[in-house]
Amino acid sequence: MSSPSDLGEFELIRRFFIRDEKSRRESGVILGIGDDAALLDLPKGTDLVAAVDTIVAGRHFPEDADARSVGHRALAVNLSDIAAMGATPLWATLALTMPSVDPDWLTRFAAGFLDLADAHAVALVGGDTTRGPLSISVQILGHVPHGAALRRSGAQAGDLLAVSGTLGDAAAGLAMLKASARRAGSCEVDELIRRFEYAEPRVRLGLSARGIASAAMDLSDGLVGDLPKLALASGLAARVSVDLLPLSAAMKAAVNPGQALDWALAGGDDYELLFAVHPERFAELKAAADRLNLMLTTIGELSVGASVTWSRNGKEFVPSVSGFDHFAQASTQITV
Amino acid sequence: MSSPSDLGEFELIRRFFIRDEKSRRESGVILGIGDDAALLDLPKGTDLVAAVDTIVAGRHFPEDADARSVGHRALAVNLSDIAAMGATPLWATLALTMPSVDPDWLTRFAAGFLDLADAHAVALVGGDTTRGPLSISVQILGHVPHGAALRRSGAQAGDLLAVSGTLGDAAAGLAMLKASARRAGSCEVDELIRRFEYAEPRVRLGLSARGIASAAMDLSDGLVGDLPKLALASGLAARVSVDLLPLSAAMKAAVNPGQALDWALAGGDDYELLFAVHPERFAELKAAADRLNLMLTTIGELSVGASVTWSRNGKEFVPSVSGFDHFAQASTQITV
Repeated sequence: MSSPSDLGEFELIRRFFIRDEKSRRESGVILGIGDDAALLDLPKGTDLVAAVDTIVAGRHFPEDADARSVGHRALAVNLSDIAAMGATPLWATLALTMPSVDPDWLTRFAAGFLDLADAHAVALVGGDTTRGPLSISVQILGHVPHGAALRRSGAQAGDLLAVSGTLGDAAAGLAMLKASARRAGSCEVDELIRRFEYAEPRVRLGLSARGIASAAMDLSDGLVGDLPKLALASGLAARVSVDLLPLSAAMKAAVNPGQALDWALAGGDDYELLFAVHPERFAELKAAADRLNLMLTTIGELSVGASVTWSRNGKEFVPSVSGFDHFAQASTQITV
Repeated sequence: MSSPSDLGEFELIRRFFIRDEKSRRESGVILGIGDDAALLDLPKGTDLVAAVDTIVAGRHFPEDADARSVGHRALAVNLSDIAAMGATPLWATLALTMPSVDPDWLTRFAAGFLDLADAHAVALVGGDTTRGPLSISVQILGHVPHGAALRRSGAQAGDLLAVSGTLGDAAAGLAMLKASARRAGSCEVDELIRRFEYAEPRVRLGLSARGIASAAMDLSDGLVGDLPKLALASGLAARVSVDLLPLSAAMKAAVNPGQALDWALAGGDDYELLFAVHPERFAELKAAADRLNLMLTTIGELSVGASVTWSRNGKEFVPSVSGFDHFAQASTQITV
């Protein structure tokens, strides 16, 4: 039979990205990689949830980043979107553009991607490989019971604002990675770098928050950039006390307070969840986070109006930094 | 309210890519662009169909290509995958990576994308814009009645092989575009270039073929590259008479016969459909194509075995060209 080259596109996907038949069958995959499209069985009574995110070398991760962390990241940023909807991830497709075929790089990339996929029972159901500058687009598909998704627009005046985990760690880790600080070998530095390289999407917390929180979104671009989107979508004003922003022990140990605050406010890539929750429901949300060994911290509240304001030590505060925006000239501080 | 920059990512998507609320509501979109993910209502009793394809500047289209044709192409290549499954397209997400924001380019790109989307009642439900070398990933979602999809693996020994439309035109058009032949102004040249720039995905033919054809795939990489995939998936041998390959009048008029045959065999980007169909069902498939004013031509047949062979004037023939493979060194003849 005339066959495509030994490392043709089809074979490339198959060789590096197909693990086993079993996990695919378990996830509602009728037909996976290998035909013109995948055929998928969405659970009855659910809404389909779909999101897409691209990461580009030199923009979202250093050109020389460990391929394993790049594979993890490409899926993690998408799982975080599913988490923010309170949805269950099911399937992903991967569009991988690479300058050349490097089997070692691909092996590590696939390991990072598939280990995280396995951890969340996500099946890779479609792929496209293309030659070009390194960039990775992943689309994630999931489901949520009909009408139960957490939207940005569901918040009510009087709701508390709460964030999971700690803020700014990933931005700190990226700065340290760029400064080659890992070689210094401090435990705190390693922890911050790990937070950048292997962000943990809060899928289980998102699922637990369904029916409790009134609104949610993930913090991909930093609190200063993201909070206004939730406030705008809900038609409310937001007020945050920056003294309440949760900082990790590693951040406090390794970074001066002013820089730590800037990163907590505007550092992207934390992939923590921001919730709006009625004060009477907060204890339930906190208990859910406790069960997952996750911090959950109130940082402010929502009210009638249309502004986002910040306070520090009881006084008005204007953040000197803005969130990550791929096309805003003013916000390149966390690009690589 | 503190707001993102005037041309932030969110606003960028909204400004160029959101047409109106009405068409989105009609397409089962519960929640479209603007939250962490889209919420979609899949019709009952159907399987979800998902595919992804990326096009990269300088690889799949010339760097200086008209943005309108690039927008069309980004969606067309994905609609073609849906067509090959006999499915109905519903929704798309767009991951757009651009070196900079050029409003004129974006306006034309969006027009090309959205005009084709409207023609097929496809709603754009998610987007991600990133700065980087120009490349576009689209994921397409559709539906098909449970169990009714056309697969590559469904062919039977004795089935005829048939292709829609004419082959090789897009490859000829690309070559002429690169040679700046459009300025010469010949009607045939313009027609071939149009076939490259504005390929028409055969969605309606795919739908009509459901329940008639036994297998289908789209010809994105050229017949020489794609036919072995269908034969392999079905576990059969294929034999094609290259004398039967359908050539357009424009091709016959503008291109010498040897070059025309090479392009018909191995030129990518035609986005015609290749079918396997039982001989007794061929007339039905032909009638369906006739109703759509599309040619449908038998080019060979499938039999027990595991080879793909070609004949010309009744003699064995070995194609001197291979299909487009993004990572095969031997097949760069139609890259740009």
